[in-house]
Amino acid sequence: MFKRILIANRGEIAVRIIRACKEMGIQSVAVYSDEDKDSMHVKLADLAYNIGPADAALSYLNYDALMQAALDTEADAVHPGYGFLSEDADFAERVTKAGMTWIGPHYSTIRQVGDKDIARAAMVPSGIPMSRGSDPLIDEEDALRKAHDVGYPIILKPVSGGGGKGMIVANSEDDLKKILHITDLKNIKYYFEHYIDHSRHIEVQIVADNYGTVLQLGERECSLQRRNQKLLEESPSVALTPDMRKRVGDLAIKAAKSVHYSNIGTVEFLLNLRDNDFYFMEINPRIQVEHAITEAVTGIDLVKTQIRIAAGEPLNMSQEDIKFTGHAIECRINAEDPDNNFLPSPGKVNFFIEPGGPRVRVDSGVCAGLSISPYYDSMIAKIIVHGHTRGDAIKIMQRALDEFTIEGIKTTIPLHKKILRNDYFRTGNIDTRFIKVHFSKYHYTKSEADAALLAQKGTPANTNENKQEEAPTNNWSQEKVDNDMRIAIRSGLYYM
Amino acid sequence: MFKRILIANRGEIAVRIIRACKEMGIQSVAVYSDEDKDSMHVKLADLAYNIGPADAALSYLNYDALMQAALDTEADAVHPGYGFLSEDADFAERVTKAGMTWIGPHYSTIRQVGDKDIARAAMVPSGIPMSRGSDPLIDEEDALRKAHDVGYPIILKPVSGGGGKGMIVANSEDDLKKILHITDLKNIKYYFEHYIDHSRHIEVQIVADNYGTVLQLGERECSLQRRNQKLLEESPSVALTPDMRKRVGDLAIKAAKSVHYSNIGTVEFLLNLRDNDFYFMEINPRIQVEHAITEAVTGIDLVKTQIRIAAGEPLNMSQEDIKFTGHAIECRINAEDPDNNFLPSPGKVNFFIEPGGPRVRVDSGVCAGLSISPYYDSMIAKIIVHGHTRGDAIKIMQRALDEFTIEGIKTTIPLHKKILRNDYFRTGNIDTRFIKVHFSKYHYTKSEADAALLAQKGTPANTNENKQEEAPTNNWSQEKVDNDMRIAIRSGLYYM
Repeated sequence: MFKRILIANRGEIAVRIIRACKEMGIQSVAVYSDEDKDSMHVKLADLAYNIGPADAALSYLNYDALMQAALDTEADAVHPGYGFLSEDADFAERVTKAGMTWIGPHYSTIRQVGDKDIARAAMVPSGIPMSRGSDPLIDEEDALRKAHDVGYPIILKPVSGGGGKGMIVANSEDDLKKILHITDLKNIKYYFEHYIDHSRHIEVQIVADNYGTVLQLGERECSLQRRNQKLLEESPSVALTPDMRKRVGDLAIKAAKSVHYSNIGTVEFLLNLRDNDFYFMEINPRIQVEHAITEAVTGIDLVKTQIRIAAGEPLNMSQEDIKFTGHAIECRINAEDPDNNFLPSPGKVNFFIEPGGPRVRVDSGVCAGLSISPYYDSMIAKIIVHGHTRGDAIKIMQRALDEFTIEGIKTTIPLHKKILRNDYFRTGNIDTRFIKVHFSKYHYTKSEADAALLAQKGTPANTNENKQEEAPTNNWSQEKVDNDMRIAIRSGLYYM
Repeated sequence: MFKRILIANRGEIAVRIIRACKEMGIQSVAVYSDEDKDSMHVKLADLAYNIGPADAALSYLNYDALMQAALDTEADAVHPGYGFLSEDADFAERVTKAGMTWIGPHYSTIRQVGDKDIARAAMVPSGIPMSRGSDPLIDEEDALRKAHDVGYPIILKPVSGGGGKGMIVANSEDDLKKILHITDLKNIKYYFEHYIDHSRHIEVQIVADNYGTVLQLGERECSLQRRNQKLLEESPSVALTPDMRKRVGDLAIKAAKSVHYSNIGTVEFLLNLRDNDFYFMEINPRIQVEHAITEAVTGIDLVKTQIRIAAGEPLNMSQEDIKFTGHAIECRINAEDPDNNFLPSPGKVNFFIEPGGPRVRVDSGVCAGLSISPYYDSMIAKIIVHGHTRGDAIKIMQRALDEFTIEGIKTTIPLHKKILRNDYFRTGNIDTRFIKVHFSKYHYTKSEADAALLAQKGTPANTNENKQEEAPTNNWSQEKVDNDMRIAIRSGLYYM
């Protein structure tokens, strides 16, 4: 087993990994930017190493600084968490070639699944259903032709990168022309998929060891998204019958085997609500934010499992050993103001009481007295509840949200409370348009075209740069937003 | 189901009950003394009602104030928690006769099990093994004769009251004479039991509805005690074979049926390590501090179950439906200074970070900025962890204790860390003398005779008055304590 793991991340996921290390008797090395010197992950780790200034490009995304930290602290493995460099095959390769273990799949696998074009091609021989797609786009003319072949509505996707970044839907050629006008086809590789407009986001947790055992730990329902960013996840999904659950689990295992996957990962599907079948989207070769709901229903610690697999341990279990209990829900708590266009709300946390008591888990990277940095992702905590039933879990989550007291910054807690009271949510009648349809005021920014342009720059998932799309709106009003929404819908310039 | 429950308690158990109420859609009424006006339970409840000054006798133990609160807030049920009036049959009777529901067994049952003499007599027809005992003592002469009949070593116990208060062991007639010299036989009813000197404290959680169904939810190992006060509990007990587990579970059900028990309760046994059999001690007719470890291993919410049974719901399950998973441990975190004779450490909590992450539950009545009152019990929080195995649970607890940050007051966290590192504990080789033997410096007070005298006053379990026995020792030293220990052991003047 490893002696010392360097955690190339920050915030709640760094804390999560430190906790796993402590329970496994492994030393943990936190890395931190100047901005993060007082952070929870720095306090809790066995060692902490400064890797540079606040700007993530110079610290958490800085290969050299991270490699130096790993060498200086004599780490024998690197855990990348999610976001930042977690899907960066080049960094994984560098870590591996320096003689350390990358806690994740082999860098060649990361490279393969990170290119959607290649990943989709790998799925074809196994017969995994996919939305019709195009080859990468060359120029506007090529794009218009390929869109026609794929068939509208289409969704424009960057070939690299995951997590829903930089995707735009076009319902018609007119829409597409507008989008292409603000899309940088020269410097970023894009392609089209036929857009499944009425769908649920269903993903399957995969666990695979280095010896060919591939298991699936059930699905997660992640349809509740705002602008492709997940807000609330649950497991199991109420949309699946036992047959559908078996089918999507089998598809996920096939997909993982198609790329000789090892370590843990997630196979994302859209459940097309028009034909009730699953369509492969992508494989995320890393731990996910929402991993804890799978931990709740299976009792399996996914971070420890990652570490054990990376250390060469076999899984020593079979699919029949995986038992599912109850229903889990996660709410992501972001330092954003949902009533003010999700404007990031950095600042000092003056007072912080996490919910406690039975069946509530809190994973947070924050405590009273700390400041939420404007430099990084605004997710500050996750609440995970585990009920006997979905109704039970909803009640526990409502109780937990009521208890959560955060003073000094704005958070998305009020939005979650509203979602949990929504009848469509309560009856499980949700799809990926849920927020757009039922919470429309939370869905749109003032200028979708500007937002789309910025979002397409393909910034890393876990840095503050994404937040530029959330620029303050000085003349915000419900009427303005509603009007913008109408314009956006007409023009097709909106996010799923 | 009830509309509004008045919680006749404070601290973490009041918070625990409020949480259950919220998840069940029941309004909660907190009561509070002047001292507690800013407490967590006041903040979290739907309604809060002042019941008087800090002194518990005038507030939390004040029948009239509590009844008035219940009537004024139109509560239809009263939950007593533990300590305070939770085992007070007269108060339960008054609540019941005022037309409200007492969330606990019928007051006649509380009366029956609260008198150890009557309770023991009720167990005889069912053949439940008990340590040899005496009738209540009349005077010194009678006591000496009865002690002789029972056989030394004997333990002197008050007939009323539970929780290990006011008990003293005498190894010989000389010992007993010294004890009787400081024992108020006139005003407090005492009796003797033959003292089982090498034992484990094993208790069984009972759940019984109003329709004759009595189930047992497994055992809790509570041998880790300091002066009869539990410090750390776990479930299951490593001392039990499957046969022993079945036997003690069956005995507990028999004991509950002997007194026509309904609602939840605990049957406490000593496992005599000399003959490996169980000896009945008492039935606690209330929720216990350590209930959460049973919740962890069974998945059953005991507070909700209490409320449902009191509302007349049948259990609708059988013994075979109870499934046990993993291993749970609880550490009680007290605001006491273990390195200074467990001197209570009231004061303002300047900084408070609870442990979080997977498999950790915290039940606390405290947050940053609150003051710990010198007026009440010093237990401020409980950490409950749930591992796949005992070894797993120990590691999670160690990690959680490391994370728990409380500034401004002293706590028992350092003692728990030492216990978890102790090899005897780690191998499960524990008995009720564990703290005395392995942590002797934590076991003794300067003057055992003074402590015994004060402890015998039979003060309520959940008030600060118990703490008088923990008077500060200005000239404390390890040598002094060791010497006191030798004297105490020679004289027999020590607590189990």
